[in-house]
Amino acid sequence: MKIVQYDADISIKRDLDSGTEEQGKVVTEIIGKVRQEGDAALTYFTEKFDRAVLEDLKVQEEEVKQAYTEIDEETLDALRAAIENIRDFHQRQTTQSWFTTKADGTMLGQKITPLDSAGLYVPGGKAAYPSSIMMNVIPAQVAGVERIVMVSPPQPNGQLEPVVLVTAHELGVEEIYKVGGAQAIAALAYGTETIPKVDKITGPGNIFVALAKREVFGEVDIDMIAGPSEIVVLADEQANIAYIAADLLSQAEHDELASSVLVTESQVLAEAVAKEVQKQLETLPRKEIAQASLEQYGQIIVTTNLEESIKVVNELAPEHLEILTKEPLNIVGKIRHAGAIFLGEYSSEPVGDYFAGTNHILPTNGTARFSSPLSVDDFTKKTSIISYSEKALVENGSKIATIARLEGLEAHARAIEIRLEEK
Amino acid sequence: MKIVQYDADISIKRDLDSGTEEQGKVVTEIIGKVRQEGDAALTYFTEKFDRAVLEDLKVQEEEVKQAYTEIDEETLDALRAAIENIRDFHQRQTTQSWFTTKADGTMLGQKITPLDSAGLYVPGGKAAYPSSIMMNVIPAQVAGVERIVMVSPPQPNGQLEPVVLVTAHELGVEEIYKVGGAQAIAALAYGTETIPKVDKITGPGNIFVALAKREVFGEVDIDMIAGPSEIVVLADEQANIAYIAADLLSQAEHDELASSVLVTESQVLAEAVAKEVQKQLETLPRKEIAQASLEQYGQIIVTTNLEESIKVVNELAPEHLEILTKEPLNIVGKIRHAGAIFLGEYSSEPVGDYFAGTNHILPTNGTARFSSPLSVDDFTKKTSIISYSEKALVENGSKIATIARLEGLEAHARAIEIRLEEK
Repeated sequence: MKIVQYDADISIKRDLDSGTEEQGKVVTEIIGKVRQEGDAALTYFTEKFDRAVLEDLKVQEEEVKQAYTEIDEETLDALRAAIENIRDFHQRQTTQSWFTTKADGTMLGQKITPLDSAGLYVPGGKAAYPSSIMMNVIPAQVAGVERIVMVSPPQPNGQLEPVVLVTAHELGVEEIYKVGGAQAIAALAYGTETIPKVDKITGPGNIFVALAKREVFGEVDIDMIAGPSEIVVLADEQANIAYIAADLLSQAEHDELASSVLVTESQVLAEAVAKEVQKQLETLPRKEIAQASLEQYGQIIVTTNLEESIKVVNELAPEHLEILTKEPLNIVGKIRHAGAIFLGEYSSEPVGDYFAGTNHILPTNGTARFSSPLSVDDFTKKTSIISYSEKALVENGSKIATIARLEGLEAHARAIEIRLEEK
Repeated sequence: MKIVQYDADISIKRDLDSGTEEQGKVVTEIIGKVRQEGDAALTYFTEKFDRAVLEDLKVQEEEVKQAYTEIDEETLDALRAAIENIRDFHQRQTTQSWFTTKADGTMLGQKITPLDSAGLYVPGGKAAYPSSIMMNVIPAQVAGVERIVMVSPPQPNGQLEPVVLVTAHELGVEEIYKVGGAQAIAALAYGTETIPKVDKITGPGNIFVALAKREVFGEVDIDMIAGPSEIVVLADEQANIAYIAADLLSQAEHDELASSVLVTESQVLAEAVAKEVQKQLETLPRKEIAQASLEQYGQIIVTTNLEESIKVVNELAPEHLEILTKEPLNIVGKIRHAGAIFLGEYSSEPVGDYFAGTNHILPTNGTARFSSPLSVDDFTKKTSIISYSEKALVENGSKIATIARLEGLEAHARAIEIRLEEK
C-alpha cells in the first residue's frame, strides 16, 4: 500500500460503476417487455440470461425442504444466532405514532404506518449472500411490512442456492420467485400475472439491477444505489498492526473497486501495516482481487496528529470506520460522517457485516454526509394528523387567511372564512 | 365537477411535468457552466433569465431592514404565530441517539447527527411563498443543521420580495443569495467562490429547478420532486356542503394540474357539492385556473358505503385527505396511505398549509404509499456504533467466521480468527 503525507487537498479515489449507455438501453428494453408481456417475458429472459428453463417461477415448499438437507448444523446455528442479534437490534429502532394536544382543542400528530409490501433482490452468481437477505428482510419485518417478496436468479438447473432458501425460511419469507436481473426489478415494480407489484425494492445487484432500480424509482421506492465497499481505519501508534492489516484486506477482497484506507499520525505504524498487508495478502484465496483493489484504491495517510486524522475521516465520510486508538469512545463525538463506527480492537468490521446486529447496508461513496444505514424507518412512512377545533379556528382564522392572501391564494382564505361566518 | 360511480378499476388522473428533452439539455448546460465558471456564470444567467444586473449575489443587512418597512403589523403577527406553531410541532419530531449493552461487554448504538449544511430554494415570480420558507427552514433548524442557506431569483430591480426577506430574518436565516433556477441548484451542489456547497437541497421550484435537482442528486441529497398538489375529501351525508366545496376549490386554485376529489357514499351530497362548487367558483380571482383544474382532474366518486370509500382513499394515497364524517377519528386507523389527514369540519386544509404546525411539504402523486412529510429526520442521518468485547468475540468468533466462509470471503474470516489466536 502506498503511504502519503496528509495535505489539505487529500481525497481518496472512489469509482462508481454507472453503467454504459448500451447497458441502459438493454435495461429499458427489458423493463418495457416485462410491462407488456408479464410472466412470458420473465421466463424468456430467465432462459436467455440464466440458461434456466422454469415451469414455475415460484419456489415450492419441497424445494425448501430439500435445501435443509444440504445445510449442516454448524451453519444453521451461525445463521440463527445472527438472525437473533439482527432482529434484537432492529427492534430497538421502532418508533411510535404520537400526538400532542392544546387547550383550545387542537390535536396534532404523526402516525407511523408500515409499507404494505417490499421486494428484496438477492443476487445469484458464484457465491450466496445469506447476510444480505437478513439485513434486508429483518428491518422490513420489524417495521410490520405484511408482504415481503424475495427474487433471485436461478442456477441453470432451475434451483436457488440451498443457503438462500434456508435463510429465507428461517426468516419466515415464503414468497420467493426464481427470477433475477432487470426483469426481476421490472416485475416487482409493475407486477405480472404471478408476481404482484410491491411498494419498495431493496437489495444489492449487478449493474443491470442497479440501472433498473434507478429507472423504476418513483413508480416504487428503492433503497440507495450502493457504490463499492470502503473502510477507513483510524489508528494511533499503539494499535495492533496485524489486526489493521487483516481488516484492510477483508475490505479489499470484496471487489477490485473496493477501497481500504488507513489514517494515522504514526509513520512507524504506517510502514509496519504496509509490510504486514503484503505478508497476509500472499496466502489469500482472493489475492488477485485484493491486490488490484489495494493498488488502485488503497492508501495509508499519515497526519501530524489525532485532530488532523479526525478531520481526514470527516472529509472522507467513509462507509465503515474502525477506530483503533487508545480511547476510541472519546473520538465518536467528533466523527460527523460515517455509515458505521467500529470501536476498539475486537470490533473488526466482519463483526458488523454478519453478526453483531447492526445493519450492513450502509451509505457509500461519501454519502454518509447525508445518508443512513438501512433501518426500520426505511420500511415505514409518516402521515401528519391535524384535528382543529372550532375554538382554535375562531382564534386563529384571521391569521391563516392573512398568510393565504399574502401568497395570492384567495380560495384558501375563503375556505377558512366560510367556517367563521356567523360565529 | 363530474360525478362517477365507484368501480374496482377507478383511478384519478394525475399528471407530472417531467420536462422535455430540450429543457433537460438546457439544465445540463447551465450546471456545467456553473461548475466551470462559478460566480461569473451565476451573474450571467441572472442577467439572462431574471433580467437583473447584480453587484453582489449576497443579500445585505440593509436590504433586510428595508424589507421590514414594507410589512405591516398584522402580517408580521401572522407570520410569527405560524413560525411558533411550526417550530413547536417539529421540536416533537426530534429523535435521540441511543445504545444498548450486553453482559458480554458488547455495546451497540445508533448515533443521530444533523447534516452540516442545507440549501433552501425559494421560488421567485409572481407571488411570494413565506410558508414554503418556514416549512423547509424549521425542520433543518430543529435538526441542528449549522449552515442554512437560502437562494431565490431576484426581481429585475435586483431585489427579493420583502416578505421573503422578513420571513427569513424572523427564522434567523442570514445567508441568502439572489440567484434562482438551475444555476442556483448547481451553485448549492458544487459551490462557487461566493456560495459554498451544501449537503442537501430542498424546496419547490419550476421545471428547470426540478430537473437540476434530479441531476445533482447523489452529489448532494435532495428532497422529493413534488408533483401537482392534490386533495381527497372523504365525506358522509351529514358533512357541510359549503365547506367541502370551499376546500376542493382551495386545492384547484393552486395550479391547472392540481387535483380535487370528493369520495362519498351519498349521491345527494355529491350532487349538492357539485352545484356549490360551481357557485363558489364564480367569484374567485383565480377562477380560470381552478376551473381548468376541476375539469381535467376534479372528480366526485360515489361509493356504496363507508368501507368502500376508505378503500378508494387507500388506492389513491392522496397528498391531503380531509375526513368529514360523523366520527372522523374512528377512520384514521383504516387509512394506510396519505400525506396528511385533516379531521373534522374545522380542519380545513389551509389550516395545515400555513399554521397548525405540521409540515406542508407532503408526498404527491400516490407516493404516500412509501414517502413521508418533510420532517426533522430529513435533516439528520444515523451512524451505527459497534463496540465488541474480547469476551463477545471469543464466544461468537467461530460463528462469524462460518458465515464469512459461506459467502466465500476468507479474509473476513481471518480478520476474526487472527484476534482469537492464543486466546
